[in-house]
Amino acid sequence: MAREIAEQPAALARTLQALRPQRAELQKLAADRRVVLFVARGSSDNAAIYGRYLLEVHAGRASGLAAPSVATHYQASIDLSEALVVCVSQSGETEEIVETQAWAAGRGARTVAVTNDGASSLANAADVALVTQAGTELAVPATKSYTAQLAAMAVLAGSLAPEPDALDADLDRVPDEADRLISARAGVDAAAEKLASTAEALVSGRGIAFGTALEAALKLEETCLRPVRGLSYADLRHGPIAVVDSDHVALLVSASDGPMVPGMTDLAHDLRRRGAAATIGIGGDNGFADAVDIAVPGPDLPELVAPLALIVPAQLIVETLARQLGLNPDAPRGLSKVTQTDPA
Amino acid sequence: MAREIAEQPAALARTLQALRPQRAELQKLAADRRVVLFVARGSSDNAAIYGRYLLEVHAGRASGLAAPSVATHYQASIDLSEALVVCVSQSGETEEIVETQAWAAGRGARTVAVTNDGASSLANAADVALVTQAGTELAVPATKSYTAQLAAMAVLAGSLAPEPDALDADLDRVPDEADRLISARAGVDAAAEKLASTAEALVSGRGIAFGTALEAALKLEETCLRPVRGLSYADLRHGPIAVVDSDHVALLVSASDGPMVPGMTDLAHDLRRRGAAATIGIGGDNGFADAVDIAVPGPDLPELVAPLALIVPAQLIVETLARQLGLNPDAPRGLSKVTQTDPA
Repeated sequence: MAREIAEQPAALARTLQALRPQRAELQKLAADRRVVLFVARGSSDNAAIYGRYLLEVHAGRASGLAAPSVATHYQASIDLSEALVVCVSQSGETEEIVETQAWAAGRGARTVAVTNDGASSLANAADVALVTQAGTELAVPATKSYTAQLAAMAVLAGSLAPEPDALDADLDRVPDEADRLISARAGVDAAAEKLASTAEALVSGRGIAFGTALEAALKLEETCLRPVRGLSYADLRHGPIAVVDSDHVALLVSASDGPMVPGMTDLAHDLRRRGAAATIGIGGDNGFADAVDIAVPGPDLPELVAPLALIVPAQLIVETLARQLGLNPDAPRGLSKVTQTDPA
Repeated sequence: MAREIAEQPAALARTLQALRPQRAELQKLAADRRVVLFVARGSSDNAAIYGRYLLEVHAGRASGLAAPSVATHYQASIDLSEALVVCVSQSGETEEIVETQAWAAGRGARTVAVTNDGASSLANAADVALVTQAGTELAVPATKSYTAQLAAMAVLAGSLAPEPDALDADLDRVPDEADRLISARAGVDAAAEKLASTAEALVSGRGIAFGTALEAALKLEETCLRPVRGLSYADLRHGPIAVVDSDHVALLVSASDGPMVPGMTDLAHDLRRRGAAATIGIGGDNGFADAVDIAVPGPDLPELVAPLALIVPAQLIVETLARQLGLNPDAPRGLSKVTQTDPA
């Protein structure tokens, strides 16, 4: 996992370079499509959540997440003739995603596959395949394949925006920022130590960085075998915040700018008042860093592209924590690389 | 909370009777709308998830959950001229929901409010208000207001289906089934006792009953102050299942028929093999009841309408567990009835 975390700057640069030439193709495919629907599970689902926010906030295109069971278990008859359906799967072979893509195409959808394998079932059946250039990923927890998917989301959303190259300059800075965070490891060991010392953890973020928070929670859960909840701060405030006590460490994820920083900072103060064991903050601005107990610096990137590197410190924390707990971060208990969601 | 759980059969019957006459109005409003989007938080969000599946599976209408922050924080400019936007809030006064409704209307959406207060901001501003007849709800955890929202979802989805009265006969049986489950309390005490004895809980369901599982998890979390994760079985299998060990009790929620029963039954077997402390099953068929350690009977209702009563045993378990833990189920720590999701 450590090695593949370190390969991300190169994987991100390769993926951005490989996918940008497909912009015109994507524009044409989506020209008469009023809504974009994502189909994914696990880390790919967290990448899709970033894609969804970026499409709505940056490209102004209505977007959402499809429920695969509507296709696979209920075979619902829905008119998708105005939908672009984007299926995201590292392997391109997760059965329910492949099946949902076929269902969508059969109901009039145009389809885009985001996958790391250009020869996969998903890529072969799609109208357009965005093939990420992560290279072979050996560790079970997704790292470079996940950030490469985020790069694909940025290219996709950028393609459908009024100015398709508006994000390019910032995206070009992503590989160096990821590289800088990997080398610096600032705050990573302190954060892992704090997480090792408590039984309960929750992870929060919101908006453009919400998928990053969910991905950090998923990695903590599947790699460190910690029961962790990932929640938007709005959902957290709406009820579950009541459980926070001195057994809980909160991991808060924020971009360094944008409309979510005040709410994330306020949440950090609130969690401290409620007696949380500790708050760990990844990213944010100076006010946010002051509000948390352990501040882990994030990338110097604007909110819209920050997720491509903001996950890096979380990955380093997870990898460090797994080793501290005596676990093998490359092959967590009970997981496999190509996941099937229903019994065979 | 116990009193309001008991008021549900009457609240459900009143709500169904009050809202059915609005079918024609809903059909007219939605006639040229290709997609239905829900806006909600907390228990209302869980009701919306039922609404979303029912609309897709039963009415064949594309549907999804909007991300309120796209409106409230990013003020995204999205064309919603083919969308019906359904805002769900018991009080009708949660600011972000009211604000998102105004944003949607300003971008061309037609709007439906589902609220328990016909004089609320949400109801006043909507094109059509579906006013649930739960009566005043005093306990902070939603019970009768939630099931009344589910009744509104059934009327809404039914209205947009090819045969608008197809679910009527089954819906008419809901109040009696809810009443029967409240009186019987079968398995409730045993389930609460098991949950009291372990530190970790997870809740799973899928498809039409997925919202029920999430609502059970939310109630356990906010009322019993248990950190609980609610996951579809597909998401659970896709990674988080790795954390299950002898500290974990799993609460599994299933309708008695439909395509999810085999997967839920298989999940129960799998969790036992993985050494879970116990599995509690609400609903399901005989095979499912045999596969779990504690079987809590659900309603005798087909899957499409089962959620209206399937939550009842979960509510009874939560209320019983809260008292066993010495907590006040009517006024959980740190929560209020009208929730705001951002600092004032």
